[in-house]
Amino acid sequence: MKGNIFYAQSGGVTPVINATAAGVIDAYQKNKNVFGKLYVGKNGILGALKEELIDISKESQSELKLLKQTPGGAFGSCRLKLNDFKKSEKNFIRIYDVFKKHNIRYFFYNGGGDSQDTTNKISKFFKDKNYPITCIGLPKTIDNDLPITANCPGFGSVAKYIATSTLEASLDVKSMSETSTKVFILEVMGRHAGWLAAAAGVIKNKAGDPPHIILFPEIKFNEKYFLKKVKEAVNKYGYCVIVASEGIKNGKGQFLSDSGLKDSLGHSQLGGVAPVLSSIINTNLDYKVHWAVADYLQRAARHIASKIDVDQAYKLGLSSIAYAKKNIGDIMLTIKATTSKSKYNWSIGSTKLDNVANIEKKLPTNYIRANGIEITKTCNKYISNLIQGEDYPSYHDGYPKYANLKCNTIKKKLKSYKL
Amino acid sequence: MKGNIFYAQSGGVTPVINATAAGVIDAYQKNKNVFGKLYVGKNGILGALKEELIDISKESQSELKLLKQTPGGAFGSCRLKLNDFKKSEKNFIRIYDVFKKHNIRYFFYNGGGDSQDTTNKISKFFKDKNYPITCIGLPKTIDNDLPITANCPGFGSVAKYIATSTLEASLDVKSMSETSTKVFILEVMGRHAGWLAAAAGVIKNKAGDPPHIILFPEIKFNEKYFLKKVKEAVNKYGYCVIVASEGIKNGKGQFLSDSGLKDSLGHSQLGGVAPVLSSIINTNLDYKVHWAVADYLQRAARHIASKIDVDQAYKLGLSSIAYAKKNIGDIMLTIKATTSKSKYNWSIGSTKLDNVANIEKKLPTNYIRANGIEITKTCNKYISNLIQGEDYPSYHDGYPKYANLKCNTIKKKLKSYKL
Repeated sequence: MKGNIFYAQSGGVTPVINATAAGVIDAYQKNKNVFGKLYVGKNGILGALKEELIDISKESQSELKLLKQTPGGAFGSCRLKLNDFKKSEKNFIRIYDVFKKHNIRYFFYNGGGDSQDTTNKISKFFKDKNYPITCIGLPKTIDNDLPITANCPGFGSVAKYIATSTLEASLDVKSMSETSTKVFILEVMGRHAGWLAAAAGVIKNKAGDPPHIILFPEIKFNEKYFLKKVKEAVNKYGYCVIVASEGIKNGKGQFLSDSGLKDSLGHSQLGGVAPVLSSIINTNLDYKVHWAVADYLQRAARHIASKIDVDQAYKLGLSSIAYAKKNIGDIMLTIKATTSKSKYNWSIGSTKLDNVANIEKKLPTNYIRANGIEITKTCNKYISNLIQGEDYPSYHDGYPKYANLKCNTIKKKLKSYKL
Repeated sequence: MKGNIFYAQSGGVTPVINATAAGVIDAYQKNKNVFGKLYVGKNGILGALKEELIDISKESQSELKLLKQTPGGAFGSCRLKLNDFKKSEKNFIRIYDVFKKHNIRYFFYNGGGDSQDTTNKISKFFKDKNYPITCIGLPKTIDNDLPITANCPGFGSVAKYIATSTLEASLDVKSMSETSTKVFILEVMGRHAGWLAAAAGVIKNKAGDPPHIILFPEIKFNEKYFLKKVKEAVNKYGYCVIVASEGIKNGKGQFLSDSGLKDSLGHSQLGGVAPVLSSIINTNLDYKVHWAVADYLQRAARHIASKIDVDQAYKLGLSSIAYAKKNIGDIMLTIKATTSKSKYNWSIGSTKLDNVANIEKKLPTNYIRANGIEITKTCNKYISNLIQGEDYPSYHDGYPKYANLKCNTIKKKLKSYKL
């Protein structure tokens, strides 16, 4: 009897996580002689715990074809970190029961650091139980903070969005700066690592080009130095463009976005580092400021995905089936990058799950210039490689045509489970 | 002696105002037998006042070719409203002196309501002085609030950006909603008119589709009703997507974005209605909220411009030269729209400047549904027509290739002028 596959999406979604799903599905459909059913977990590992399994064969082929060009997590994602099973086996036993009942012999988990940790724990638990299952982690995160892999699918597309948006908004503020707005601030994601903020730097070719200031979470925020640099840019170039990572912290180690904003009723105000920076400039310098917070717009911007990124995400999905066919598990697939004669080449590799779980890759020191507010050439080259090429979705009625899956789950065979 | 042309860009810029400039330049280059020089004012009408004139023949043809695909105002814009010349003639006399000295016989001013007012005043002043000059206003504003013209160039592209971004972010929050973020808020521009907020509504095809709530500046914000609708959407669909116009006001007529946010030092906090709405939800409902403020990103998003919009903006530029050749002035060019057999057709028309100056076109009452938070089919159709087709810029190194003009000004012939 052929074993079934369980695939699920986990953690914060990306513009190309569905491209990985599309790769899994396309390769699976060509290998039905080897595999039984392909089940997708509804809302990540929750789908396993709740026995909510989507049978991919019940979805229409035309909608599945759109999956590669669709942002978000088409099957639902979740933020749920499993405990150590040596402390509490409960959830693991439930997953074991569900997988056994549905003859699941392949586990593909598509996510970031926490998700690789989950994959690793499940792999170890099933080994303990002598249940043969091939566990493969598929990397995904816009934060680009997984180790071993040269980069994470998702990052390249968001980087392309940020580079493009920064360039466009810079042209806008430059036009307005003579009589109106002189400073523009763009807040981007990245709680702990400055990869996304760094992406804005690729558009700078010479002194004076925007962005004039990048604020990385790796560098402590210094208000005095910041204001000096803003003033300098406005005096020299007429305007100043700032790209700030949401995760920048002040000298006391507090997030700037948590710096005590309160509304008129005294309720503390949620997040947003851009309005805080805007306030700092307004209080100290007499410049009109505009600010934007990209938030989910950046993370979902499939309309301006990087071709390289889509290709890598899709290929990872295809490769998971190739590895599964050979029963190579307990691994996370990786992107291996090589540069020969300045041409960027990449291929799919793998690493043991133990090597990746719970390690966060920050921006290397030599990627940030000594002034603390610009990226180096090495960083520029690294990011530039990952934003090459466009992969436009098809459009209908003036906006992109994205997959609309039914996501009906199959009939349950087990009793319901309380998390 | 052939008369020279003065063209300038004014007010808040758009993704396609340079497409209009490109139309002017392309048509001018084919009509050098009729016209003398084409001068572009640096920073709008300031270029006339300061005698800062850019001679278009000094720019490289390859950069000028990129103009049509470049956002922002490539020659600089300004926010400067001229007084009534019956009260103070000073600025008008200066413009008269500059135009006379440089033999300027055609005045094309590319802007929104204030700019049409400026064009009108200049037209009247020069008529009073018996100086023959053909004054043509070229419409432009993402706010779509000019009267007579069926729509304003700039609006369609920003509408396409907002529709697409709302759809994409909706797919993101939908994936996360089971265990994490349940509400997403997108703040869009529109201080007085809800055209841009309405644009998000085109992606809704059936009940349950996002956006679930649109907040228009035309409708008074009612906190209780708002919270009820947020709760309803989360209960029914698992998540709630809100698109809010920056200009929404509470029952007292105050902007919600000015609702008294203060930082820890007591400095009042600048704008942003999205964080205020997020705070209202957090205080009253136990949902995780994400919010984005698109700000200049929307206004500069040339990478996802509407083809119809680019075509109209460009054609307006071409037409200005055709009208000027016939010496038809004292007008603003318009877009005339006709729909035959549900096919949208458009052409260029004109109207007397007196008809447009200082009139603001708000969203018609029959464009907002009775529930106050959705658009009607009529509105959907109107906006849908304006976002059709894609007009991608060319890319270089992974980001769009935008024009980089020298914008050197010619030698001054007059003494400097104090504004």
